[in-house]
Amino acid sequence: MLTPGTAQTLAEQLAGRYAQRIHDRLLAPGSRLPSVRLCAAQQGVSPSTVVAAYDRLLALGLVEARRNRGFYVREPVAPRRRSSAPAGPQIPAPVDATALIRAMFHNRAEGPQPGTGVFPPDWLETPFLATAVRRVTSPAALRKASLQYGEPAGDASLRRALADKLAGLNIQATPAQIITTVGASQALDIVSRTLLRPGDPVMVEEPGWAVEFARLSALGMRILPVPRGPEGPDLAVMARYCEAHRPRLFVSVSVLHNPTGYSLTPGSAHRILQLAAAHDFHIVEDDSYSHLAPEQAVRLCALDELQRTIYVSGFAKILAPGWRIGYLAAPDTLAPRLLDTKLISTLSTPPLLEQALAWCIAQGQLRRHAERVRVRLDAARARSVKLAEAHGCRFVAPPAGLFGWVDAGVDTEVLAQRLLDAAYLLAPGALFHAARQASTLMRINYATTQEAAFWKVFARARDALGARSG
Amino acid sequence: MLTPGTAQTLAEQLAGRYAQRIHDRLLAPGSRLPSVRLCAAQQGVSPSTVVAAYDRLLALGLVEARRNRGFYVREPVAPRRRSSAPAGPQIPAPVDATALIRAMFHNRAEGPQPGTGVFPPDWLETPFLATAVRRVTSPAALRKASLQYGEPAGDASLRRALADKLAGLNIQATPAQIITTVGASQALDIVSRTLLRPGDPVMVEEPGWAVEFARLSALGMRILPVPRGPEGPDLAVMARYCEAHRPRLFVSVSVLHNPTGYSLTPGSAHRILQLAAAHDFHIVEDDSYSHLAPEQAVRLCALDELQRTIYVSGFAKILAPGWRIGYLAAPDTLAPRLLDTKLISTLSTPPLLEQALAWCIAQGQLRRHAERVRVRLDAARARSVKLAEAHGCRFVAPPAGLFGWVDAGVDTEVLAQRLLDAAYLLAPGALFHAARQASTLMRINYATTQEAAFWKVFARARDALGARSG
Repeated sequence: MLTPGTAQTLAEQLAGRYAQRIHDRLLAPGSRLPSVRLCAAQQGVSPSTVVAAYDRLLALGLVEARRNRGFYVREPVAPRRRSSAPAGPQIPAPVDATALIRAMFHNRAEGPQPGTGVFPPDWLETPFLATAVRRVTSPAALRKASLQYGEPAGDASLRRALADKLAGLNIQATPAQIITTVGASQALDIVSRTLLRPGDPVMVEEPGWAVEFARLSALGMRILPVPRGPEGPDLAVMARYCEAHRPRLFVSVSVLHNPTGYSLTPGSAHRILQLAAAHDFHIVEDDSYSHLAPEQAVRLCALDELQRTIYVSGFAKILAPGWRIGYLAAPDTLAPRLLDTKLISTLSTPPLLEQALAWCIAQGQLRRHAERVRVRLDAARARSVKLAEAHGCRFVAPPAGLFGWVDAGVDTEVLAQRLLDAAYLLAPGALFHAARQASTLMRINYATTQEAAFWKVFARARDALGARSG
Repeated sequence: MLTPGTAQTLAEQLAGRYAQRIHDRLLAPGSRLPSVRLCAAQQGVSPSTVVAAYDRLLALGLVEARRNRGFYVREPVAPRRRSSAPAGPQIPAPVDATALIRAMFHNRAEGPQPGTGVFPPDWLETPFLATAVRRVTSPAALRKASLQYGEPAGDASLRRALADKLAGLNIQATPAQIITTVGASQALDIVSRTLLRPGDPVMVEEPGWAVEFARLSALGMRILPVPRGPEGPDLAVMARYCEAHRPRLFVSVSVLHNPTGYSLTPGSAHRILQLAAAHDFHIVEDDSYSHLAPEQAVRLCALDELQRTIYVSGFAKILAPGWRIGYLAAPDTLAPRLLDTKLISTLSTPPLLEQALAWCIAQGQLRRHAERVRVRLDAARARSVKLAEAHGCRFVAPPAGLFGWVDAGVDTEVLAQRLLDAAYLLAPGALFHAARQASTLMRINYATTQEAAFWKVFARARDALGARSG
């Protein structure tokens, strides 16, 4: 909210708000500021205040005026050098996804953020985390975990605990097949860097998580988007890609898919593996939402027995996002190559927190905690769904897991810009598409959309937009 | 040592030793086992024992017999798929460097390892590390650093401490220009991924650290090796590369260069920066050995004031290798792009240990500790140099810093294989060249070569080889 009567003038406040948003790239280079008239109406200030604010942004070199067309965010001083690597229209600029993530970290707003991808900290509170850390920071243990590098593949106690944990999902992996990583992110990065060369075609589910698109496009890969349906990826599309492009890899969030919440059916899993065998591609199964899913959910890696599948997961969604611990489990023959890639990217990972996590898993603490979170999430989801529907949102996928995939009825990117004025961060549908396109969909986090206050602000902004476009 | 009279026969023990070495890739695919006669002489066993051992390796599928040419280590089942990216003869397989590193971690031998790149743990013992960890693991601090992601750029208190620390090196960087990473490795990885595209030419000092060559070649870069002399890189060679190849980046360990121990002169630094300006390339200055060098050593980043230079360093060589904390400081305009690359590779880094490190730096503990280590290293170096020279080694660069670069008079790769039998790990000169080539040089770690026992074993093996080849 702009506040009159403070040390800053309204124009200064408004200019400061836009400057911050441009800096955070929540307003991307090339995007247009609202017209003076519209901005004045949105902010409840006079047009002359807006003109003064835009003049300040001009003077700061953050925007440029285009004759008769308004104000546009300037390109940064050192534009990203364009690569000569193959790049089709399907490859998005990574700027948007990373801007969303960076904004998530800023925590400017006090309230819960509907667009965030993690639980609020209070959901993850447990008494055993501190116990685990105390155990691994005794003088002798601390010395051992600090004064020398950890094992390249990751702490041995953690890899043993993970092997046991995977066995519970019917995935048999020895500790030698497991490599710990800096979050599931690094695991996915390692797999792509090891199995792919720039220009290689890779199949990714769409909608899907923007950071995965950004990572693959930054590595110079050709992204082949596969529509994700309730039962799994569209197999007919995959088959056509296989014939036409010979993709090397398929990246799949099989269980509680982000953003739809869909989980793979056994039949679909079987047919994906048949296709992979026929066309000789690898599959990386991103099971980041593992702890929010019932254990009996089917995993591609379980059916395949880690022959041409690589399992990836982590603990950011359930225990300790700040610890940045993820892992992968790979076929015997692949594990050494993946380990080499870990070595050249981060050498090893810090053993201290890995040991603490190993204890949490081995003691059964993590399992019991996950059960409690699932119960709480079920209740939150029920309430959030009711509120969303009451405020005119339509669920385009049956509610499940952490995320809802809803139709807001208006362009959610425009809506997201408006809600930033009220300090709410949305995750617009455009972020989840390999080719950036306007979308009326958005992803909501059930844990952070339980307050009627948010939905009121949401509905008001949506209605204002709808009235204008309708 | 092979030990008769145990449960395993001598042939089983010998086969087991080679199997382990092949598994660890200390014997690379395609390399030849010693002839039966030579191996028998080396190991002090009968030729029939060697034949039995080699037969076992054959049966295990680890080696293959080539008619009249002996036994060769087999390629692994899933050979690395060859890329279509440009690859010249100057690009080595990463296998050797990573094998050395993995072997360093195995700690099979109890004694100090001459080939290792770090201090033995007892050199890094300090009372303040535990204090620092206690401070950041109070219940409230632990919750804050665990239950949410850290800031993408890294913990703010650490970045402030690093900015102050850099000021002491005459490098002015704001916390916003600093990004923390998983060791200096990730910093170097992030810089390469951000500034280069596959196929781009990049200048790297030679000799240089094998992992840097491996990282760049895995990313598909064209490596242009620049000879490193006592005053700095060979500027005439760099100028020719600039004319012929238009390199995008120069990677330099300017101070206490690995493996030579050379430090850049001010004049050389100035001329490098002139060349960079004339030919528009960036420079990444890897200052990993910063804490072992006098503060007045000249840094490229100080002269350049972070205009086209990026500073990289870490704490593995002085405080806590297991914490895996490194960082980079970059020009204002580059920092956001580098941060995007950090986001897509590991999202963020664990704030807990970053906060502990920030305290160690801010309290002056790290500085005082580094002073003590330098004094101890000076004494160790003097002793190690005396021993090395007494055992026939010639220093090809004046002793300085952590590493000695010495001529052993025989092929050090062959020598390294022999010393593995005595459980000593050497760092042969071939590892430090972009194009793998036989070398009589090797890198020794002054902190781990102070025992006469090692030098005796070394001299005996070297003399045996010398006699054979001479």
